[in-house]
Amino acid sequence: MRVLGIDPGYAILGYGVVDYEAGRLRLVDHGTVETAPGQPFEHRLLAIADAVGDIIERTKPELVAIEEQFFAQNKTTALGTAQARGAVITEAARAGLRVYEYTPAEIKKAVTGAGRAEKAQVQLMVKVLLNLSEVPRPDDAADALAVAICQAFTGRLESFELYGGYQGRTARARGSGRG
Amino acid sequence: MRVLGIDPGYAILGYGVVDYEAGRLRLVDHGTVETAPGQPFEHRLLAIADAVGDIIERTKPELVAIEEQFFAQNKTTALGTAQARGAVITEAARAGLRVYEYTPAEIKKAVTGAGRAEKAQVQLMVKVLLNLSEVPRPDDAADALAVAICQAFTGRLESFELYGGYQGRTARARGSGRG
Repeated sequence: MRVLGIDPGYAILGYGVVDYEAGRLRLVDHGTVETAPGQPFEHRLLAIADAVGDIIERTKPELVAIEEQFFAQNKTTALGTAQARGAVITEAARAGLRVYEYTPAEIKKAVTGAGRAEKAQVQLMVKVLLNLSEVPRPDDAADALAVAICQAFTGRLESFELYGGYQGRTARARGSGRG
Repeated sequence: MRVLGIDPGYAILGYGVVDYEAGRLRLVDHGTVETAPGQPFEHRLLAIADAVGDIIERTKPELVAIEEQFFAQNKTTALGTAQARGAVITEAARAGLRVYEYTPAEIKKAVTGAGRAEKAQVQLMVKVLLNLSEVPRPDDAADALAVAICQAFTGRLESFELYGGYQGRTARARGSGRG
């Protein structure tokens, strides 16, 4: 199974592609997509969508995993991130891919075994699990690889479907059996 | 000038297209795009993006106007709406159109002369200004026509450029001169 993980954002978006076969992970690609603040926002969103389209075309993932969005930060940043997320998810759907989402705790638990692991511990495990000589850089790309690994390891597709990044666990549990 | 106005949403999105020439407004098209809650969210976003792409192709607007998003409502609805907004704005940019945004007060003032007008008053003025026999239905389409009329009447393009639906008036004022 080949998974594209996305850490969404409008100024910087991280991506990471992994293969998971016979219990073994392999790094395929990782990096970031960046857009400049001086550009009109619609051009930034289009640049993000096009870049994600190119990554999908080049790496041919079978599905996409993305971190669930909360309102932890600043509201204005959250609205910008949500719009970038909308552009990315639409692009994935246009390529015929399903999109699954995971909470930060689910990602930490899948990667390190502990839902409250520190960021550095998650990054170290990404390095170990992918058999790399260094922690992947920048952080956005490492975070994207962590969500891809979470999808590869847990992959309970029917219960983790994305119904918008805005519905709680309960709503999604009620959503099982669809799609 | 032909303007496409959008009232964004993921369950229901309103759109309205108007022509404005020599001080006269003319209704070209209006309606809604609806998506069903049972579908995976990525399919809903793609359906919205494709529908907006079809409206642009069919009506050939020169630009797009959209209401600025605030966090007035429920946070989870706001995240869903922001993602739909991202899908729509990306589609407009892909068609080569610029996207401008207006606050609710700007729209009310442009359409009725009063920034604190009631919704019914805005809708009545949309009917009068477009020389229609009835108020356009549903409300989402009437709201989309109001934002299109606001763009047609005020049209100070350089100061109303969309920098994400997440930047305050001050930030956007500092942004003038770009694009």
